[in-house]
Amino acid sequence: VDGSFEPVARRKIDLKTKPLGALGRIEELAVQLAVIQRSLMPNVATKHILVFAGDHGVVDEGVSAFPARVTVQMVENFLAGGAAINVFCRQYDIGLSVVDMGVDTTFARHPLLIDKKVARGTANFAVQPAMTREQALAAIENGARAFLEQHAVTPMKIVGMGEMGIGNSSSAAAIICAATGLGSAMVVGRGTGVDDEGLKRKREVIDRALRLHRPDPDDGLELLAKLGGYELAGIAGAVLAAAANGCCVVLDGIISTAAGLIAYLICPAVQGYLVAGHRSVEQGQQAALQRMGLSPGIDLDFRLGEGTGAAITMNLVDLACRTMREMASFAEAGVDSGNI
Amino acid sequence: VDGSFEPVARRKIDLKTKPLGALGRIEELAVQLAVIQRSLMPNVATKHILVFAGDHGVVDEGVSAFPARVTVQMVENFLAGGAAINVFCRQYDIGLSVVDMGVDTTFARHPLLIDKKVARGTANFAVQPAMTREQALAAIENGARAFLEQHAVTPMKIVGMGEMGIGNSSSAAAIICAATGLGSAMVVGRGTGVDDEGLKRKREVIDRALRLHRPDPDDGLELLAKLGGYELAGIAGAVLAAAANGCCVVLDGIISTAAGLIAYLICPAVQGYLVAGHRSVEQGQQAALQRMGLSPGIDLDFRLGEGTGAAITMNLVDLACRTMREMASFAEAGVDSGNI
Repeated sequence: VDGSFEPVARRKIDLKTKPLGALGRIEELAVQLAVIQRSLMPNVATKHILVFAGDHGVVDEGVSAFPARVTVQMVENFLAGGAAINVFCRQYDIGLSVVDMGVDTTFARHPLLIDKKVARGTANFAVQPAMTREQALAAIENGARAFLEQHAVTPMKIVGMGEMGIGNSSSAAAIICAATGLGSAMVVGRGTGVDDEGLKRKREVIDRALRLHRPDPDDGLELLAKLGGYELAGIAGAVLAAAANGCCVVLDGIISTAAGLIAYLICPAVQGYLVAGHRSVEQGQQAALQRMGLSPGIDLDFRLGEGTGAAITMNLVDLACRTMREMASFAEAGVDSGNI
Repeated sequence: VDGSFEPVARRKIDLKTKPLGALGRIEELAVQLAVIQRSLMPNVATKHILVFAGDHGVVDEGVSAFPARVTVQMVENFLAGGAAINVFCRQYDIGLSVVDMGVDTTFARHPLLIDKKVARGTANFAVQPAMTREQALAAIENGARAFLEQHAVTPMKIVGMGEMGIGNSSSAAAIICAATGLGSAMVVGRGTGVDDEGLKRKREVIDRALRLHRPDPDDGLELLAKLGGYELAGIAGAVLAAAANGCCVVLDGIISTAAGLIAYLICPAVQGYLVAGHRSVEQGQQAALQRMGLSPGIDLDFRLGEGTGAAITMNLVDLACRTMREMASFAEAGVDSGNI
């Protein structure tokens, strides 16, 4: 983004009828969107969430509380309109598409489904790279294409990045450990809800994988190929494509944020387009956000993913833009501005 | 509320297609509204915010960064639709009324304005009680009537409590100090933005008032009469009336929360109807919430009042009800429920 517009945007919000800075995070979002759109009348009238889905070989290690077939079942649930993200998108007038990046099945065609499958799931990263470098590149490209094709149909002002994939919190945590240098005890959480025994196993699996692969912490593509998932690659590609098209990107929980970090490592200039969707219960998400200089504005104790936190924050971005456009200034309202 | 309905409500949310508890705060709100409405299909389709306004004699002590006439000017701004709360209510389809409880002027009639004025501002509580016990009672009754008259026009499922009154963060902080026993250094913040010198003065004024009045910490009416404001009394009355009519009440920042605490001290049974609107920058708000056993789900660094935090949370309550109504269960969606 071109930061030179920021002082102009900040001046506009500072002159509105409220104590200086009294709308906190909403003011920050208003300024960010004004800068992204280079406009003092920013808007995010067209909103869309892309839910990227994929399966994970690492589930063979017993790292999830749910069986792998739940990935397919939940994609069917998204397509039928019954999942949390469907409810949230209806509440906030957000369009929804599901992108099959690597689910271990063949889906029937469906108007909400975008087929970008690279393979029917990754290899088990505890024993070999999750994918080849070629597969990782193809998946990033497919993710970018998913965004671009949807953008061609309904141009988006803001896009949320959701995901579904049993096992993917292990992949995300491994990437965050590798990228930040933090130990697994600081990063790895319970995902969908493993017990103490399962958490211990999950941390051991990730420690083992990190010793096996020794990835370069600054090489996003290498982190992705060795430890990632196809839905994470899809998100990374979509983030790159969205930022390149001037579209604000809202991340979600630990998986979406780890995938955003991959995009950031590949191209740090995406940072100005990124918004943290919420603070997840998964502690590793915070480390990934910090690595990108982002901080979340809502903390609802979510640990679901799908884009649920992103949906709420997309609405807050909408509110922020509206505040920038519609709220009166001290001069317009004839209100004394006090000692600001 | 009748807590016997809670296990039934919790069972319904636990069987939906997500890991147990994965929607955190939204699940808690869904259960609370189901209990309030004794329904597994809760809804808050009709939403309203009441902004109570009043002036404060204590501004003579130099406790605010804005001059007292800003109370009148901001009420005019609300009526003209230019303030933050107007934008927020438009965003969330929330009705808005302004209740003149004690502003130091005579307003022309306006469709959004409800006249419940008791007096043209309180006395300076640093040197005498803010109001007489009779005035405090009349103001509580007027606040209840404001709710009931609006409720007769458009029956509310949820109501947000906003306020405007230069000087009122001093009144709220004094009430919270007295009710919780915490010292002013722990409770008193910068309000609309006083500097270090102003903050020191504000704390000294409140310490002096507490020594002068020595109010009974458990007597809500006495706290209100000695340290309160007419808009706080109005909110307290409206909270009592709303709870008595089975309407969920969303509090806002430190002033709204202090007024909610007055209602709670008068009648602790209101607790089950109360929702914390947000975590304010004003540290004293947290102490008042804790006194009532409430905790906020959003922390956007707000310190504006008007009902702005309440508006956002009312939308989250709406989302929570919708999630309870619309989200599929594991059985309905044919999804394996894992090890829950």
